[in-house]
Amino acid sequence: MSGARKIYTMPGPLRMYRGGCSLSRVDVAYETWGELNEARDNAILLFTGLSPSAHAAASRLDPSPGWWEEMIGKDHPIDTRRYFLICMNSLGSCFGSTGPASVNPDSGEPYRLDFPVLSLEDVARAGKELLRGLGITKLAAVMGASMGGMTALAFAVKFPTVAEAVVSISGAARALPFAIALRSLQREIIRSDGAWNRGSYPLGAGPVRGMQLARKLGMITYRSSKEWQLRFGRERIAEERKTGDAFAIDFEVEAYMEAHARKFTGQFDPNCYLYLSRAMDLFDLGDHGGSVEAALGRVRAKRALIMGVETDFLFPLFQQKEIADGLEAAGLDVTFAGLDSLQGHDAFLVDMDNFRPRIGEFLA
Amino acid sequence: MSGARKIYTMPGPLRMYRGGCSLSRVDVAYETWGELNEARDNAILLFTGLSPSAHAAASRLDPSPGWWEEMIGKDHPIDTRRYFLICMNSLGSCFGSTGPASVNPDSGEPYRLDFPVLSLEDVARAGKELLRGLGITKLAAVMGASMGGMTALAFAVKFPTVAEAVVSISGAARALPFAIALRSLQREIIRSDGAWNRGSYPLGAGPVRGMQLARKLGMITYRSSKEWQLRFGRERIAEERKTGDAFAIDFEVEAYMEAHARKFTGQFDPNCYLYLSRAMDLFDLGDHGGSVEAALGRVRAKRALIMGVETDFLFPLFQQKEIADGLEAAGLDVTFAGLDSLQGHDAFLVDMDNFRPRIGEFLA
Repeated sequence: MSGARKIYTMPGPLRMYRGGCSLSRVDVAYETWGELNEARDNAILLFTGLSPSAHAAASRLDPSPGWWEEMIGKDHPIDTRRYFLICMNSLGSCFGSTGPASVNPDSGEPYRLDFPVLSLEDVARAGKELLRGLGITKLAAVMGASMGGMTALAFAVKFPTVAEAVVSISGAARALPFAIALRSLQREIIRSDGAWNRGSYPLGAGPVRGMQLARKLGMITYRSSKEWQLRFGRERIAEERKTGDAFAIDFEVEAYMEAHARKFTGQFDPNCYLYLSRAMDLFDLGDHGGSVEAALGRVRAKRALIMGVETDFLFPLFQQKEIADGLEAAGLDVTFAGLDSLQGHDAFLVDMDNFRPRIGEFLA
Repeated sequence: MSGARKIYTMPGPLRMYRGGCSLSRVDVAYETWGELNEARDNAILLFTGLSPSAHAAASRLDPSPGWWEEMIGKDHPIDTRRYFLICMNSLGSCFGSTGPASVNPDSGEPYRLDFPVLSLEDVARAGKELLRGLGITKLAAVMGASMGGMTALAFAVKFPTVAEAVVSISGAARALPFAIALRSLQREIIRSDGAWNRGSYPLGAGPVRGMQLARKLGMITYRSSKEWQLRFGRERIAEERKTGDAFAIDFEVEAYMEAHARKFTGQFDPNCYLYLSRAMDLFDLGDHGGSVEAALGRVRAKRALIMGVETDFLFPLFQQKEIADGLEAAGLDVTFAGLDSLQGHDAFLVDMDNFRPRIGEFLA
């Protein structure tokens, strides 16, 4: 566990957005960088993608590199001399926040599939509750990429006057059927692994193979065909790395996927993955006011930075354009950036040359 | 079994392109439409994609509709009053041609994983042997789509003077790493199903769940995000169709995939699927002469029709352009058609309004 991780326990139950039930005890794990100013108005709330923890960057208490290391710090785009950054582990995840792998106080056992249906609206609300706990009523910005970009929009629509700026990167106002099909298949692959056992696996173990296969499918959709052509081409693996198994891997691109899938396994709880993945499918800003346009029309932030990447086929660029147009119609000062990064959906994690200056300028 | 299916048994063994071994007895299943003319020069040899049988269209002996029904017949683009069409079930498949599900004459048992490594060059050679059996030395055209489009190119390069024309639709001169990753994952999903049992399942049964999941992944890659947005959007399934299972399907796009995956299961032998899928990954025309350009430079056909579809992300349009450019450099009269069909890689099976006139004109 990260030494920088703090836990906020909500004073009361959290009413879930769907399903008509509540979570009786809710922990929210988070980390912070920088200092909250006297006016308490320099905070940025950062929502993550599906799999990261709250450890977005190194700090004194946890010097290990975070998932957005190059974006956060002194003289970095999210400048911690100016801003008080809060990164939150999503509700439903397994890195300190309450989720399906947490113990249900009513039963003394992990929730597993008894966890209620999770929506990104619940993740956004948990973020709002965390702010209450920290005594923050105004944000300089709410921010996120991928699932976090969706959650940042949910936050801005549900709590329209809290954030002065909205930064949504490679996000979407609603899940497309193509993305739903891909995530649905990932979930089915996990559920098809006998070790899943309808969610009742020993925590920390479970459907290892299913998680690896689902992760591989994720990786294929997070990058771009063009990048892989340049990186791997048709390069074969060396003879001595071959296993002799029938249909074992031949190509470098297969070895790359295998290595990354193995790294992922054991880090992420399978039931949490299922809940967060479905929350993305269920997300539709149109639920708030009848249409995406109407929902975005509620946002009272002043400015927005909406970014996307041309090679992203999971969250295609027209989805970010839809967000930008909706916020512009709502009267926000919108900066839209459609980048030509090679790395597809994951570009915000790796293409720092393109992302850093845009985010830095917007927050300057 | 189709009443129209004929079997040609090769008079001797077939030496495989890779692995230095031979198949001692080779059957090739095929169907024909139209009549071979006196000059024996009006035949078209049609190679299929990964999963179809030789039953490309209805005939007197088998009136059930074929997989390319609207393309074949009197007054159809492949006009059977003029041409003698031969469609061949690929070597390695399970619809009459010798493959991993066939009995190995040396052991009396099915080959299963003892089947030698299959290459599309072997499929092309089996086609050439079939022509020999039919007493045909010249073709009016060699033709195919998807895997069949790759095989048609392999045929045209290996037997450069046989076909007067080449028609390659949504094919490629070599597999890209993105497509390799997707097919590799499909194979791993099948192999991860315990019922696969390293290939030793009861024929006709086996890894049903793995095949369904692999089929779903295939379907996602065969169509386009744009098409699914128009067809399904975020439509939910009716309450009464819900199963009550945790994480069972919510959306119409999921129900569509489930129905198609179930239809596929039991039709296709899992080991045959593994062999044919890998053959596509291994395919690289550059193996013939050092580069794709050099390989295509060998082709002595007079004309070529090279088609592709803008929404195809499995066999992207630039791959068909590469083929067209290579054949043009080789001196062929090349017609290149990059279509704006919505249906992605599968468009040749469904977007008849776009495909029929182009193929009809070329063959007229």
